[in-house]
Amino acid sequence: MHNARLHIGMLIYPQMDQIDFTGPFEVFSRIEGATVLVMAQCKEPVRDALGLILTPEYTLGDAPALDVLHVPGGPAAGRSPLMEDEKLLAFISDHANSGKLLYSVCTGALLCGAAGILIGKRATTHWAAMDLLPYFGAIPVNERVVRDGNIVTAAGVTAGLDGAFTVVAALRGDQAAERIQLGIQYAPHPPFHAGSPETAPRDVLQAVEAQYRPLKEVRLAEARRVAKRLGIDAS
Amino acid sequence: MHNARLHIGMLIYPQMDQIDFTGPFEVFSRIEGATVLVMAQCKEPVRDALGLILTPEYTLGDAPALDVLHVPGGPAAGRSPLMEDEKLLAFISDHANSGKLLYSVCTGALLCGAAGILIGKRATTHWAAMDLLPYFGAIPVNERVVRDGNIVTAAGVTAGLDGAFTVVAALRGDQAAERIQLGIQYAPHPPFHAGSPETAPRDVLQAVEAQYRPLKEVRLAEARRVAKRLGIDAS
Repeated sequence: MHNARLHIGMLIYPQMDQIDFTGPFEVFSRIEGATVLVMAQCKEPVRDALGLILTPEYTLGDAPALDVLHVPGGPAAGRSPLMEDEKLLAFISDHANSGKLLYSVCTGALLCGAAGILIGKRATTHWAAMDLLPYFGAIPVNERVVRDGNIVTAAGVTAGLDGAFTVVAALRGDQAAERIQLGIQYAPHPPFHAGSPETAPRDVLQAVEAQYRPLKEVRLAEARRVAKRLGIDAS
Repeated sequence: MHNARLHIGMLIYPQMDQIDFTGPFEVFSRIEGATVLVMAQCKEPVRDALGLILTPEYTLGDAPALDVLHVPGGPAAGRSPLMEDEKLLAFISDHANSGKLLYSVCTGALLCGAAGILIGKRATTHWAAMDLLPYFGAIPVNERVVRDGNIVTAAGVTAGLDGAFTVVAALRGDQAAERIQLGIQYAPHPPFHAGSPETAPRDVLQAVEAQYRPLKEVRLAEARRVAKRLGIDAS
């Protein structure tokens, strides 16, 4: 089982947050016997929310059967239209319903939620979007990485690295994850302690919350539309 | 000073390690008033050591004057020829000698060392390459991030994220770094504790060291060639 060839599909799209993808890519591409497929709706390069050019090599249609599907997040501009894209949502829900591992990072959880696969599931997302999870029928869990059955969700942005090790351990065992961790020297030691709302200085939290306010409104409108479509009463 | 427009040049090259670049990119591209320039020797896309396609938008020749130059690392195939590339080495040393910030991640330090800018400087690199630093005249410091004057070096691969915050704080102050940290929820919590040789289980360390053995020989030969050129006796 631990030696079986693995196909790991990693979705990219315009205006996503690149490290939601490149963090886990670093980990997954080091799994022995794994092929990582960088996938998008079409084969054109995309630009992430901060301007980095990323180039897919597969489309949703031409990828082989996947053992893992990875869904990254992003602020709203690129993600919002995808939350109404039936072809993509069906691709996500077909994968999840097959029982294979699905791994979302940050607001990738909202995309998964729009695909209807988080109903009744424990999940996490970026701290500033946690309050939206009930609109998708999910149970918010304020942890860095949450696994519920075949669905693994990671919190905001850089949490994608932590969750990637949980996915590797599920696929190949703890020692495979530990070898990769040592190889990429993942013994993080941030020089500041502002990485969560609970530990950030109050003025830092207030500044970042103010910066997010317009985005939060957009995301709430998105979530309400999805809740209506899924028949969920999250009021 | 904290509001001045910043130009941050980030070097990419074939067979590099993508997260040495994408980690700091995530942080630097969120600095208010900063322009991040993804640079290479020519404008063709490159593939990182694990196959990810990265696309530069500037060449060394067409970039504006830089406030920060970032130098990522990689296993050897792509980095080795660069360690003999006079044009690139002059680009790195001209920047460092101007007194502007230079930031290397992982074995990017070896490239900087080949440019002769680490002589007499405290520096760090990937744990498996620390013993090579003296060949470049550097003083190895077993820390995640080391600053010596205008040169900041980060340890292996994922240490690039930690060091990026040190660079932001130097450019814009601690609170700017803390805001970015909260935005990207950088409160890392790896599910395993194998991220450094000191904490990894012994069998994990032995397995990874065995895997690195051929690479270590290549790197030692590189370092000896550079030491000879720089006139350093590290025997």
